[in-house]
Amino acid sequence: MALPRIAVDAMGGDVGVRVMVEGAALARRQHDQFKFLLVGDETAIKQALEAHPNLRSASEILHAPSVVAGDEKPTQALRRARTTSMGLAIDAVKSGAAGAAVSAGNTGALMAMSKVALRTMPGIDRPALAALVPTLGDHDLVMLDLGANTECDARNLVQFAIMGAAYARIVHGQSEPRVRLLNIGTEEIKGTDELRDAAAMLKQAGEALAFRFDGFTEADKLSRGDVDVVVTDGFTGNIALKAMEGAARFVADLLRRSFSSSLRSKFGFLISKPATELLKHHLDPNNHNGAVFLGLNGVVVKSHGSASALGVAHAVAVTARLLSERLTERIAADLAEVGQDAMRSAATLVRPAPETPGGPA
Amino acid sequence: MALPRIAVDAMGGDVGVRVMVEGAALARRQHDQFKFLLVGDETAIKQALEAHPNLRSASEILHAPSVVAGDEKPTQALRRARTTSMGLAIDAVKSGAAGAAVSAGNTGALMAMSKVALRTMPGIDRPALAALVPTLGDHDLVMLDLGANTECDARNLVQFAIMGAAYARIVHGQSEPRVRLLNIGTEEIKGTDELRDAAAMLKQAGEALAFRFDGFTEADKLSRGDVDVVVTDGFTGNIALKAMEGAARFVADLLRRSFSSSLRSKFGFLISKPATELLKHHLDPNNHNGAVFLGLNGVVVKSHGSASALGVAHAVAVTARLLSERLTERIAADLAEVGQDAMRSAATLVRPAPETPGGPA
Repeated sequence: MALPRIAVDAMGGDVGVRVMVEGAALARRQHDQFKFLLVGDETAIKQALEAHPNLRSASEILHAPSVVAGDEKPTQALRRARTTSMGLAIDAVKSGAAGAAVSAGNTGALMAMSKVALRTMPGIDRPALAALVPTLGDHDLVMLDLGANTECDARNLVQFAIMGAAYARIVHGQSEPRVRLLNIGTEEIKGTDELRDAAAMLKQAGEALAFRFDGFTEADKLSRGDVDVVVTDGFTGNIALKAMEGAARFVADLLRRSFSSSLRSKFGFLISKPATELLKHHLDPNNHNGAVFLGLNGVVVKSHGSASALGVAHAVAVTARLLSERLTERIAADLAEVGQDAMRSAATLVRPAPETPGGPA
Repeated sequence: MALPRIAVDAMGGDVGVRVMVEGAALARRQHDQFKFLLVGDETAIKQALEAHPNLRSASEILHAPSVVAGDEKPTQALRRARTTSMGLAIDAVKSGAAGAAVSAGNTGALMAMSKVALRTMPGIDRPALAALVPTLGDHDLVMLDLGANTECDARNLVQFAIMGAAYARIVHGQSEPRVRLLNIGTEEIKGTDELRDAAAMLKQAGEALAFRFDGFTEADKLSRGDVDVVVTDGFTGNIALKAMEGAARFVADLLRRSFSSSLRSKFGFLISKPATELLKHHLDPNNHNGAVFLGLNGVVVKSHGSASALGVAHAVAVTARLLSERLTERIAADLAEVGQDAMRSAATLVRPAPETPGGPA
């Protein structure tokens, strides 16, 4: 089966059209079946394509007269969606002109536009942003939500758990992912009402779930490799992920300082360079780039605003993987077969789901 | 001026009486003016003291028939406070039998007991737990709250900012600490209502404050050394701190793996050992141990539940420093001269302070 083409918002992000196009070209060099719809300023894209004939032959350009600004309010961006490169890339997914969209632009705007254009799947109140986080285990950790929803209720968290588990099954081929809720302790009494209610609902659903719910985990245990999916609200997820990124960079900086503190250390560093290169490769966020909006009727991937061409290529490869593995259909099937039933029964056992302002679209 | 003695809850924590007593003995070896009130099971303490004659001569024992369990609910622990080593250590501060208390026990119970026995200072609704976090800058970052208050309103956050700044002035001797609120972005529209309101109040208070409010910071910027105090609610603070601890450990583990991946790397590692030892020393949580409850009429310090004797000694040294620098009086003075006025005027300009269930005791 031919892979549907990928719409790339060529303008979003801090890095500009040159890096986005270079990233797509890199991805195409590794996978020559990839085809693209490059969305943005036509002149700028044509100019950037001159350096990449391999990409030019596999791409169509869709002109967009404007760009969503990095600090633009989502509601504001939404009003002029159809003039922006981000909005037109998402529209291409809706119309079927592309199979998926990738953007490095404003996360809030991307979330709002995707939700309005593609709608959430039946049974999902809000989409969630999921990313892969490196661990000491055999594979990365699926972490969600990472900023799409600042505040979440227990029902949202349960839905995130179901979607995150489906994602882990696809990217890691696991039959029964181990899922935990992020909290400030592992005892049942810890945390907010939302977390305790979500834990009760997941415990209640038990056997009906296509994953194993292992209760709460604390933020210092995420890299150990004994959890496959960690679920949290978007505020906490964003804080935890960035705290981890910052700490990893801090240690790497300290290490660099330590190694240059004496001639002997410098010599040792040179000798062990292959080891530190390995470390650098493992920690480089570009090698984990590409966060996915789960729960939409379509695949939308967020590339980091400051990712390099290598990072963009990684995000494009993730997108292609989700297309070829039919992410959307598989989450829908999971929800239909398992999640919905389990959630309904669990929800009625715990407490009626409250109406939230950010609820069903 | 003689230093008041320090009450040590000898029983709390995962490590037991032997490590607590060894930690106190280590601290005493470094500072021979320290005097102690060791609270807990008399027989166990006497036995532990046999190995430390230097500590025995500087200590009095206060027998406590019971211990607060690590998973005990604070409300439950509170009811039997006067039979527990933690409760009696805090009571000693209240009665003046000790100048400060140190415990490695249940944080929630320590917070609840301290609040009931010592009460919050005038103008403070809730105490906050503050710790020192390592940075690349000239000194550690003061971070609060770290778990004492799961949910906070804007008023609480403003009070934490004032207390955190006072703490930074004492431990770092800074005249005008740079204070920021932890958020998921630096733009004014980001985050929760509580964060936006707190930022507006602090901005409004402006000149009246004895610190510089620099707006929001993201969690990946905490180690750079350009912020002196970072303020957040207890849930988020706990998540961020633990995420950083976990990531630092993750990188150290990766590094160990990388270095043992080849003979050449192993050799390089051996040669550069002084450098990695320096790193290890810098990252060891025992060297940053001792979180302080700010906003109480008395000094209470929390030692990490799994700290080593070295970590306990560090927490004892922090306690002694806060006593000799008169933490409580200095925060009170700050509040009286600056904070109260500023907060009152700022609060009336923004919105009336809501009544919270965890409000004034």
